[in-house]
Amino acid sequence: MSVITLTTDLGYRDFYQAALKGSIISLLPDVRLIDITHEIPSFNIQNAAFVLQNAYHYFPKNTVHLIGIDTVFQEGSRYIAMKYNGHYFVGADNGIFSIILGEDQAEELYEIEIMQDLRFLHFPLADILVKAACHIASGKDIAELGTKIDAPLQKVTLLPIIEGNIIKGHVSYIDSFGNVISNISKDLFNQVQKGRNFILHFKRNETINKMSWHYNEVSEGEKLCLFGISNFLEIAINKGNASTLLGLYPDEMIMIEFIS
Amino acid sequence: MSVITLTTDLGYRDFYQAALKGSIISLLPDVRLIDITHEIPSFNIQNAAFVLQNAYHYFPKNTVHLIGIDTVFQEGSRYIAMKYNGHYFVGADNGIFSIILGEDQAEELYEIEIMQDLRFLHFPLADILVKAACHIASGKDIAELGTKIDAPLQKVTLLPIIEGNIIKGHVSYIDSFGNVISNISKDLFNQVQKGRNFILHFKRNETINKMSWHYNEVSEGEKLCLFGISNFLEIAINKGNASTLLGLYPDEMIMIEFIS
Amino acid sequence: MSVITLTTDLGYRDFYQAALKGSIISLLPDVRLIDITHEIPSFNIQNAAFVLQNAYHYFPKNTVHLIGIDTVFQEGSRYIAMKYNGHYFVGADNGIFSIILGEDQAEELYEIEIMQDLRFLHFPLADILVKAACHIASGKDIAELGTKIDAPLQKVTLLPIIEGNIIKGHVSYIDSFGNVISNISKDLFNQVQKGRNFILHFKRNETINKMSWHYNEVSEGEKLCLFGISNFLEIAINKGNASTLLGLYPDEMIMIEFIS
Repeated sequence: MSVITLTTDLGYRDFYQAALKGSIISLLPDVRLIDITHEIPSFNIQNAAFVLQNAYHYFPKNTVHLIGIDTVFQEGSRYIAMKYNGHYFVGADNGIFSIILGEDQAEELYEIEIMQDLRFLHFPLADILVKAACHIASGKDIAELGTKIDAPLQKVTLLPIIEGNIIKGHVSYIDSFGNVISNISKDLFNQVQKGRNFILHFKRNETINKMSWHYNEVSEGEKLCLFGISNFLEIAINKGNASTLLGLYPDEMIMIEFIS
Repeated sequence: MSVITLTTDLGYRDFYQAALKGSIISLLPDVRLIDITHEIPSFNIQNAAFVLQNAYHYFPKNTVHLIGIDTVFQEGSRYIAMKYNGHYFVGADNGIFSIILGEDQAEELYEIEIMQDLRFLHFPLADILVKAACHIASGKDIAELGTKIDAPLQKVTLLPIIEGNIIKGHVSYIDSFGNVISNISKDLFNQVQKGRNFILHFKRNETINKMSWHYNEVSEGEKLCLFGISNFLEIAINKGNASTLLGLYPDEMIMIEFIS
Repeated sequence: MSVITLTTDLGYRDFYQAALKGSIISLLPDVRLIDITHEIPSFNIQNAAFVLQNAYHYFPKNTVHLIGIDTVFQEGSRYIAMKYNGHYFVGADNGIFSIILGEDQAEELYEIEIMQDLRFLHFPLADILVKAACHIASGKDIAELGTKIDAPLQKVTLLPIIEGNIIKGHVSYIDSFGNVISNISKDLFNQVQKGRNFILHFKRNETINKMSWHYNEVSEGEKLCLFGISNFLEIAINKGNASTLLGLYPDEMIMIEFIS
């Protein structure tokens, strides 16, 4: 059974996500559909990229990941299909593909050219992206969808900065438990740490200097930091909402100081 | 694979929608289940009708649409099964079928009579509607469910009024982006417009006099009107929440004036 | 087709529940996945037990119910697999199994011992519980998962108290309609009632002395009590939110007085 996942900002209460699913099973009656989420904040490409980046690799190879965010046509719009790490992604070329790729290269990348005229589409998600996703999920060649392109639209994302013994990063995502996830990856941390101790600084005067493995290594209500399911440095409170209790929200700066 | 969709006000956090799904797959282990939504506001038949009306035709013909809203038994209650446009619908005869039909006729319409006594059902959705839906989805004849009836219970809905060069309508639905959807259909608009220009009036002094095709044809934060995915006239703000920014909520009057 | 249900506090907007589903279908591509809910309040074992207790028996026998709540490893943690009433349950041994069982005994109960070392798991749900659930759902013997144990961790739950002609219970759950569900079961009520009349007391001065069968047996906006879909005594308001209108929230005491 082929698999298509859905990541959108369409919400669960309107008819849009159902229309999407109806369109897909009308073309491909046996496909398995899995919602990654329909609760991406409206038009928030960064948020969608974070969620999809962390979810996709749990799925079987050759899964098709349909990205339904910021897909409205405008002059110069293009829709693209990408193969990356053995998975397929289809969506609007609005910058999200460059965030998913980071510094990697796509294995294959095509502009989708299956429509004569994109200008009068009301629902590009169903009208073009569903068709492309079903094309791939039915086992057909991604190359048949259109013309090979070199790179997706580049979207600048704030990367962590390394200054001597310091990594400066920022908060990139708050999960529904209130865990505060940064843009500092485990790889980057290890590479700069070189076995040294560290002090994590955030807000005016808050610090943490021990890396935890589990949320419950400190008392309930106490703060900690760890590399969680996402492999990015996370600030959490055992059984508490770190975001609201510590006042940490997206884009807030955090800093790691390594000490000898 | 046969398909049953679910449109209810049961929500996602209680056990009710899961009980519904468990009941269905216990009867029909291979059916495909798709949630249209479980987030209809409690008892809001108009809202459920709007969502289902706009979603159902994206599904394959012969899909069974189970309507789980306002299904509690009361003296004189009946439950009905309908064929319409090649799709099946089962639900309580509480007026929603007349809204879905509008001025159309059902292809087939039956009172469901598969239970001896409806008075002691605690969960009519699972006890009677699931059985009827599975009967149809398993390929059996809808006529076996009960007695043919002429028409569902009629629910009066406010239709747009045409007065000379003017269409008076109202806001019927706010989607999760805050787009304001009216009860004025594209067909009605075209039929009265006859190629003329128009001024859309709403609130005390707001006007729009250009029809857009896409949300992004105006600058971000600017208002526009268009016929969207729903085929009803919609007032929107490019990347903004038109409902809260313009103060437009369900039942608010809007008016279109055609000018030569 | 085997069935795995999911009951978690992971929410719908993060990537966690999708990661869970991806992990499952990677192991068992043909399984049917059904969300009971992902909206259990964070770490609320009582709430999860209530929802699952009321939902599971609607599913076919041999369904595997994966419980994803409070699963983080700590010293002495164990994960267990249980057969009960012809259904399977896997989860962390945090007390939830004892609440589901109540005074019943499990048919089979095993500590899951498929991992060498649990201490470094970041995502026990995917790393151990998914494997156990897929093992059972694929038709393999539950006994192969580990060592038989006698009983799950006991969690004390407040049971109703019977004092002469009185049952003292409390509010255990508020559903999304605002219906107020108590911990007084229909069986207990009948057993103490012995055909007598009753007065249900709650808040300072509120009383109800008639048992309804349907929510609409009183006028809209009026209060009533009934045994609902859950088989526990429920206080409701016809088409209203009883919890907010009557000020009834979890743990609030209610009292039934039987009179001759």
